[in-house]
Amino acid sequence: MNSFTRDVIRLASQRSVSARNDGVEECSVLVEKMLVEIGAETKVLRRDGAAPLVYGELKSTRSKKTILFYNHYDVQPEEPLDLWKSPPFKPEVRDGKLYGRGVADDKGELVSRLKTVESYLKTVGEAPCNVKFCFEGEEETGSVHLHHYIEDNPELFKSDAVVWEFGTVDATGRPTVTLGVKGMIYLELVLRSLEADAHSSYAAVLPSAPWRMVRLLNMLKDKDERILVPGWYDAVEALSEEEVRVLDEQPFDEVSFRRIHGAKDYVSQMTPSQVKKALVQRPTGNIAGIWSGYQGPGSKTVLPKEVHCKMDFRLVPEQDPAELLEKLRRYLAANGFGDVEIILESMEPAARTPYTDPFAQAAIRAAETTYGQKPRVDISSPGTGPLYLFTRRYKVPSVDIGVSSEESAIHAPNENLGIENLRMGMLWVGETMELFAAS
Amino acid sequence: MNSFTRDVIRLASQRSVSARNDGVEECSVLVEKMLVEIGAETKVLRRDGAAPLVYGELKSTRSKKTILFYNHYDVQPEEPLDLWKSPPFKPEVRDGKLYGRGVADDKGELVSRLKTVESYLKTVGEAPCNVKFCFEGEEETGSVHLHHYIEDNPELFKSDAVVWEFGTVDATGRPTVTLGVKGMIYLELVLRSLEADAHSSYAAVLPSAPWRMVRLLNMLKDKDERILVPGWYDAVEALSEEEVRVLDEQPFDEVSFRRIHGAKDYVSQMTPSQVKKALVQRPTGNIAGIWSGYQGPGSKTVLPKEVHCKMDFRLVPEQDPAELLEKLRRYLAANGFGDVEIILESMEPAARTPYTDPFAQAAIRAAETTYGQKPRVDISSPGTGPLYLFTRRYKVPSVDIGVSSEESAIHAPNENLGIENLRMGMLWVGETMELFAAS
Repeated sequence: MNSFTRDVIRLASQRSVSARNDGVEECSVLVEKMLVEIGAETKVLRRDGAAPLVYGELKSTRSKKTILFYNHYDVQPEEPLDLWKSPPFKPEVRDGKLYGRGVADDKGELVSRLKTVESYLKTVGEAPCNVKFCFEGEEETGSVHLHHYIEDNPELFKSDAVVWEFGTVDATGRPTVTLGVKGMIYLELVLRSLEADAHSSYAAVLPSAPWRMVRLLNMLKDKDERILVPGWYDAVEALSEEEVRVLDEQPFDEVSFRRIHGAKDYVSQMTPSQVKKALVQRPTGNIAGIWSGYQGPGSKTVLPKEVHCKMDFRLVPEQDPAELLEKLRRYLAANGFGDVEIILESMEPAARTPYTDPFAQAAIRAAETTYGQKPRVDISSPGTGPLYLFTRRYKVPSVDIGVSSEESAIHAPNENLGIENLRMGMLWVGETMELFAAS
Repeated sequence: MNSFTRDVIRLASQRSVSARNDGVEECSVLVEKMLVEIGAETKVLRRDGAAPLVYGELKSTRSKKTILFYNHYDVQPEEPLDLWKSPPFKPEVRDGKLYGRGVADDKGELVSRLKTVESYLKTVGEAPCNVKFCFEGEEETGSVHLHHYIEDNPELFKSDAVVWEFGTVDATGRPTVTLGVKGMIYLELVLRSLEADAHSSYAAVLPSAPWRMVRLLNMLKDKDERILVPGWYDAVEALSEEEVRVLDEQPFDEVSFRRIHGAKDYVSQMTPSQVKKALVQRPTGNIAGIWSGYQGPGSKTVLPKEVHCKMDFRLVPEQDPAELLEKLRRYLAANGFGDVEIILESMEPAARTPYTDPFAQAAIRAAETTYGQKPRVDISSPGTGPLYLFTRRYKVPSVDIGVSSEESAIHAPNENLGIENLRMGMLWVGETMELFAAS
């Protein structure tokens, strides 16, 4: 077994489930130790009620530029346990893959950055450029304290380019460069109409919270799932010609995409080409959960007193979450729903680096050199992350490059990481640093 | 504590939640025991998969007429548990009221009939007329087997008049005679769009079951909660002049009605007079429960694979449930929802006895004698029961008279029964039997 695989095993053997604060502190100690071992100067930042943020730094005389690696050392809960073929926190190699909670998301990526830099130190003596490591411990619970850490230590997180958390390699071995993430507003809507659930015979005269929610939600989107809040799309920019070209070039196995999800068709009968564009540039308004009244077996005749609806709205550049939330509030109030309670869970804008940015091009060219083929380029992930905290504040570009695969079962049982993907990914990170330092 | 209160406590201490078949068998044994104790001849009718129906009979030489008392010994689920001030199945007396699941609906009423007949046996030696008791154990799940029991034993349930399940006494001590019930269709709608919950970032392209449910439900009713299924109101008859007069005479403390339920206003800003008519003659379409996706704390970004909605539709004479269900199916299919699964839980037509019927008048005059005041007369309960099985087959009248109050919190936490109401209700039942036997 090679040393980098041993290091992933070492890190993934330490539980660090942030959702129930299980092993997070212990894992932060281990992560700092691993940084010290490669020779980094470290700081462990702390805040009340927050997981420690482990920071590391290494200077280089080869370039004045600084690259920042963002990763997280916390993991998703391992449940359901009975579906794991080997214990989630005793990583095991089978058929060239390492199995364990966190080996792909995000401990494998974290180690790949760390060991690449260590390789430079052990061979050339120093990395191609200055390096900063930002390893947080609560990404899986929404990175709720990350912005505080950054606001309190603005100099620490300054860089010229950011290598973000993750990246995937497809079944043919083709790597992906991702240039951004969508933003998000996550909220819960609550409507209350009665003080207690009533007998449903009174539905003839008493107001129904769930029916009001139906009307409220029906007013939020049309049948093509376009959001009806006035001004919602005002700031949405059309994709550039270059972005459209890049998107059109991307392979997309739409048949297997639908098969994986068991979907018969797409929203509004989109074509596969429209699907690719929508994943990048379509703002969403998703019902993540809705509940009211009786959910048990058989029948209970109840007029429910209240209804709850959790929603996530994915945003694209340059939609401003706070502004949209205000538009939503005004729209609901103007249409008879001024009494709806809006519980805001989180809010973050999108972040995106232009395709033509030199750092994006460095990552793309480095992929070509390392893998001998053009990478897939995602203009934006359809997902969300706190990337904007770095790219907006410091006005720097970012790329997502990494070592996971589409079959890594992230967040699921039997999470895994291909050992060859890990090895190749380290070479890619090194080449990206070289090209960046030289640019 | 008096003996009839002790008997209600005895019966309500036995769980009998038919929705999850919890204690129903045990409760049927207890009910038969209580019938035997007063000297009734009993039969326990059984069918596969059905709750036992406990039948009791007592002959009288005082009249050839037979009165049938219908009650049920099963109860609604007790959830939500945390809102109960005392354990739901350990009935407790506080301030002249008995608290516990089922004390009002319907175990208090059941005991009031039983103990009234027992009083006659212990004093006069026999009841004013022949008596039959029909105590079923699955009223709260829609009385789905009652019609089988009746079809299989048509002679057993023959009578000249039926005293139905329940009745309320208002805050001023005025009793209510109710002359019918609404019908009902209870069903669950299920929409499925994916094979498994997906990451909500894919909401940009993959279909959402909950959004489709919003559109489906929005199509079922307009904003005044009028049902939009074509033909839904075709068979609905206007109230007669006499019914309108009786309704107009009814007191209705609409302020306290709204206060009890904590409702700010009525559906479509109805006037109090419209509310009274709607409770009698307005068909309803109620969302009794809806659920999909994530319902826990904080945020989970999931695109749910399916959504469920439980609905009850209350019907008035002469709406035919089977016909309406077919209209609903056709309407949904014609509007793009042919794939919705409709799980039918129960179906029953309305039943109503004319105000001028002699048995109705006997119950009204008995109330005047017992309470010293004119009773409230409800042309129909807003609720539902399988009354039609008796009144239609045997062409006999029925009345609802009873001992609950408007504050009994039926189907809700802290269900309760006033002990003085229980005592008076027993006198009223006796007087009704006397007048009926003499008529």
